Amino acid sequence: MPDDLEQMWADLAPVGRSAVSGGYFRQPFLDAERELAAWFVEQAAARGLAVETDGFGNQVAWWGPPDHDAVLTGSHLDSVLDGGAYDGPLGVVSAFAALDLLRERGVVPRRRVGVAAFVEEEGSRFGQACLGSRLATGAISWETARALRDRDGVALGDVVEGVVEGVVEGGSSTLLAGVSAYVELHVEQGRDLVDRGEPVGVASEIWPHGRWRLDVTGEANHAGSTRMEDRSDPMLTYAMTALAANKRARLTGQRATFGRVEVTPNGTNAIASRVTAWLDARASTDQALADLVATVERQAVERAGRDGTSVALTAESVSAAVAFDPALTAGRPWPVLPTQAGHDAGILSAAGIPSAMLFVRNPTGVSHSPAEHAETADCLAGVVALADVLEGLVGR
Amino acid sequence: MPDDLEQMWADLAPVGRSAVSGGYFRQPFLDAERELAAWFVEQAAARGLAVETDGFGNQVAWWGPPDHDAVLTGSHLDSVLDGGAYDGPLGVVSAFAALDLLRERGVVPRRRVGVAAFVEEEGSRFGQACLGSRLATGAISWETARALRDRDGVALGDVVEGVVEGVVEGGSSTLLAGVSAYVELHVEQGRDLVDRGEPVGVASEIWPHGRWRLDVTGEANHAGSTRMEDRSDPMLTYAMTALAANKRARLTGQRATFGRVEVTPNGTNAIASRVTAWLDARASTDQALADLVATVERQAVERAGRDGTSVALTAESVSAAVAFDPALTAGRPWPVLPTQAGHDAGILSAAGIPSAMLFVRNPTGVSHSPAEHAETADCLAGVVALADVLEGLVGR
Repeated sequence: MPDDLEQMWADLAPVGRSAVSGGYFRQPFLDAERELAAWFVEQAAARGLAVETDGFGNQVAWWGPPDHDAVLTGSHLDSVLDGGAYDGPLGVVSAFAALDLLRERGVVPRRRVGVAAFVEEEGSRFGQACLGSRLATGAISWETARALRDRDGVALGDVVEGVVEGVVEGGSSTLLAGVSAYVELHVEQGRDLVDRGEPVGVASEIWPHGRWRLDVTGEANHAGSTRMEDRSDPMLTYAMTALAANKRARLTGQRATFGRVEVTPNGTNAIASRVTAWLDARASTDQALADLVATVERQAVERAGRDGTSVALTAESVSAAVAFDPALTAGRPWPVLPTQAGHDAGILSAAGIPSAMLFVRNPTGVSHSPAEHAETADCLAGVVALADVLEGLVGR
Repeated sequence: MPDDLEQMWADLAPVGRSAVSGGYFRQPFLDAERELAAWFVEQAAARGLAVETDGFGNQVAWWGPPDHDAVLTGSHLDSVLDGGAYDGPLGVVSAFAALDLLRERGVVPRRRVGVAAFVEEEGSRFGQACLGSRLATGAISWETARALRDRDGVALGDVVEGVVEGVVEGGSSTLLAGVSAYVELHVEQGRDLVDRGEPVGVASEIWPHGRWRLDVTGEANHAGSTRMEDRSDPMLTYAMTALAANKRARLTGQRATFGRVEVTPNGTNAIASRVTAWLDARASTDQALADLVATVERQAVERAGRDGTSVALTAESVSAAVAFDPALTAGRPWPVLPTQAGHDAGILSAAGIPSAMLFVRNPTGVSHSPAEHAETADCLAGVVALADVLEGLVGR
């Protein structure tokens, strides 16, 4: 591995890492993630790149003067709770390394090139995936976003105004004003490249996907003295809904997951008064996603009728299908794969910026977990592939 | 309501009460519960009773000199998370009021009478129900108990040594040394007295009951890009187990509840790596309880085989059946009821102290909830009933 690339991974390795699980906790605007934001500024400075930060915490390191036809690359630095080392950072590290490689090749870009790090891509703190890129593109307004709260009830507005320099009350971002193409490299979150024996792939599309909050309300009561037939237990409604969602997704080739649950009062000897859980659903078409969610909701309502509980399903974020721009990677030899995961590239694409994604093979196929991995040789192949795409876009 | 009784309820009403739910949060050794412990000392002082506190935080207010044939009454002051006003405090308040009534009647007791407040009856903080009375009777050793940890990982030993005066390293309690009878008054946690139209009842027995921790381990992964058939999702195993436990208890006339769940990492777009949940189970006989738990465990293991997860079920506390002493309430006109709820009276009974329980009607039938209630007239009937029982035991 080139020394600079090896040093970047060594810099990142300990930041926000749990000694217990080996996973990463890099939630936006908290210590570990802010340390990575400072690291980003250092990397830019070491390369003579000018850092621009918008009022939401998104960062771009620019190579070359302002330009109305700039090419952006990059990804994000935050993680899910107990996530892997590569989801996000691989795209940022590879972007810096690709710029280094272009310079080694003697490329003098005819378009400005930027390395981006978007904040809160995972939605792990404020519940809105791709929050930074949504703010940067105007897909979500600051008026709406500033009221989002984390699990401790802290509002995004109060956090950002204390942490990010240059935040403008009610402001908008101009980071993407001159950007006419975006290329994001990402660790693969599945086994397609493993099965194909290829180190690098290119994305065709992102499946429509979203997250919905399921609130089930029952009645708290004593777990011992309340007869089973006298209960209104929301745990039962939730449990049946989680099983129904899994079954429906399995039978139709889609995806449905309940990975987050909060119970009130959450005591061993009290029947719950409320169970709140989050449905993550993804499908190959917008119609298939709507059908999947409607089926889950109908089964939850039916079960609630039998349990004496009530249910409400509320969409927290829904992203329509995104098709990437094949022109950006035309003529490349890499296999073309769909992805079921949302990415900032999907947000930029939906905002009218031609976008592409490259994937690097993940031998475990596992992501959002400490088991996520990428071999060094594959990371290097990813850097070369990204440099090739960028050179094709900005080289003479 | 007599002024003293009314004042006691007025004292207690605001302590640890949630303005949002109206429920009580009185976990042991935290502010609200410590305020009640101080209130207990004040009530004793106002009546000229001598307070004795053991090294675990259990309190007794004594009327009369030390005696090897003392009669104890009382209950507990802690609550479940978001609990009601009456579960526990009704027994302590009624005990003080019954002593007041005995004095008004001119009773000069020929046996010492004590009012007890046992700590952590609910197990809401350290997971062990009736912890204070178990320590006082030696049913659990201090060596075992001091290592119990709350949800923040704080050990009971470290808490008690900082809060309770007179704690003795490795000590035991002498509070119950001279006690030869215990009578606990409690709000009813069901609808038997409502159905019978009676304000007061007496307990025949406590069902065998316990709590078991269910740990389901799977593999964290991305909620979008992981195919349904490639998952090891512990949420599914848990959900099926919760439904199976409910169904089995319903069909056999027993009780089984999952009211507490903790998910790791608990992120919306990550398949869980682990789900830990607590089973509260109760049955009419020890054998029926063992059968119920074995059935739940077998169904969990079967489902885990299909989900690719692993399960472990660990008993955290199990209490055998308790029969109360009918001699203590012989000749009284009150209806006799079994109870499915554990109480300190069950622990003292199991330790060989003849014990009895009185129940006061609860119009909602709901307990462990802000909806728990007792009408003033029924509370007064309870005080008179308790005073009658005590007078029968200690009067001339």
